[in-house]
Amino acid sequence: MSCLENVRVVLVSPVYGGNVGSVCRAMMNMGLSDLVIAAPHEEFNDFDAIKWAYAAREVWENHRRFPTLKEAVADCGLVAGTTAREGLYRKHSRTPREWASTIVEAAHQGKVALVFGTETSGLSNDDLAYCTHLIRIPSSEAYSSLNLSHAVMVCAYELYVTAQEFQLEGEGVPLAPMALRERMIDRWREALLEIGFMEEQKADHMMMGVRRIFARGCLTEIDANILMGIARQTQWAARNASVTPPENPSE
Amino acid sequence: MSCLENVRVVLVSPVYGGNVGSVCRAMMNMGLSDLVIAAPHEEFNDFDAIKWAYAAREVWENHRRFPTLKEAVADCGLVAGTTAREGLYRKHSRTPREWASTIVEAAHQGKVALVFGTETSGLSNDDLAYCTHLIRIPSSEAYSSLNLSHAVMVCAYELYVTAQEFQLEGEGVPLAPMALRERMIDRWREALLEIGFMEEQKADHMMMGVRRIFARGCLTEIDANILMGIARQTQWAARNASVTPPENPSE
Repeated sequence: MSCLENVRVVLVSPVYGGNVGSVCRAMMNMGLSDLVIAAPHEEFNDFDAIKWAYAAREVWENHRRFPTLKEAVADCGLVAGTTAREGLYRKHSRTPREWASTIVEAAHQGKVALVFGTETSGLSNDDLAYCTHLIRIPSSEAYSSLNLSHAVMVCAYELYVTAQEFQLEGEGVPLAPMALRERMIDRWREALLEIGFMEEQKADHMMMGVRRIFARGCLTEIDANILMGIARQTQWAARNASVTPPENPSE
Repeated sequence: MSCLENVRVVLVSPVYGGNVGSVCRAMMNMGLSDLVIAAPHEEFNDFDAIKWAYAAREVWENHRRFPTLKEAVADCGLVAGTTAREGLYRKHSRTPREWASTIVEAAHQGKVALVFGTETSGLSNDDLAYCTHLIRIPSSEAYSSLNLSHAVMVCAYELYVTAQEFQLEGEGVPLAPMALRERMIDRWREALLEIGFMEEQKADHMMMGVRRIFARGCLTEIDANILMGIARQTQWAARNASVTPPENPSE
């Protein structure tokens, strides 16, 4: 089995069927087959998609739909979101080439997702919360907004080239699936609120930073379970404030 | 000036305006602006091209048309043709990544062209005669035929990334423009026929091999003039057969 079978392309609320058909074609050209549409747009036109998919119709016919991005990537250990913009939540973005070997390595262990936003506005900050990695495709400052299928093509091409060269070294450890990661993040949010690390009105902002920190290292299942345990323990400690703190807190 | 200004995208007889509009967009995303249509197709629809170019309309508005590929690349020192197929005249093809630094280096010296064939059948063998380099985009055996604008995007993306990293070493020597090269090739053809190296009915086939040999080294103007001189001299010798051949012919 090629590791590329583990690479899912997730399109969030695409508007134009023609673009999605072109995405099917780009995917099949580059050995990808798992297409998911998250939060489908009401104006989306299936007929255009079929027309533009040409010989890649099977990719279209096998695609799945989920009401939310969260559900679309629930079983993915690495979720790479694409962004053309820079900004507070969009630091740490790297090029498709820089991430390619990381993504291919993760795809040898389990499911990974490449996430693309809607044509007009890209991924929202809410969407980015579910992304462990950020991809920014190099482009001219004069016109940095890529057509959706072009963006998919560049990313898929980089993965295809890398997958052909890639030799997996040693036994890999599976990455934490997104559902486990999200339960862990929820637990951290509760705990951080409970210990007064952040206030409710700043919690979303703070949690973006926490997510980013956890995402950077590619969490394995064991990592996620450890972090879950820390959050749980933190909550326990906060609720039992009379407990004596450790004598030599490490810094 | 960016060396990318010297990179021309030449589309041979494209049929669908929408594809060409998408090509404009991909070009502008990747810092390219010189679009040429060679041997325009009678069914081509300008309106679709404008619609699909979106914000890259200026690339469309500045495009030029030539009756033949030969005229479209007359001033280009390096002409890279794209091909999805393999075959007798399609050996020596390499990936966009493998050729990228060669092309960017040539673009620092003068005009270069990326040539893409018509949507349905790609470049003909006649078209390939004008190509000094062949590009084959890696793709899945299950479906190797890329959409025209996707093919342009992958090539343009590789050049954009390479151009950003590229540092020109020392003084470069300009490559021979295609018009000089073609005059030289014509002269060789005459000479090779005249000396009986090949028969008229096999001349086209033989000349493809000769072209390929000359193309491989990236001919400078000096090289082309030297080769022109050899052909001229060969003809002179053939017409003056009584001349004594050199005593120690080098082999």
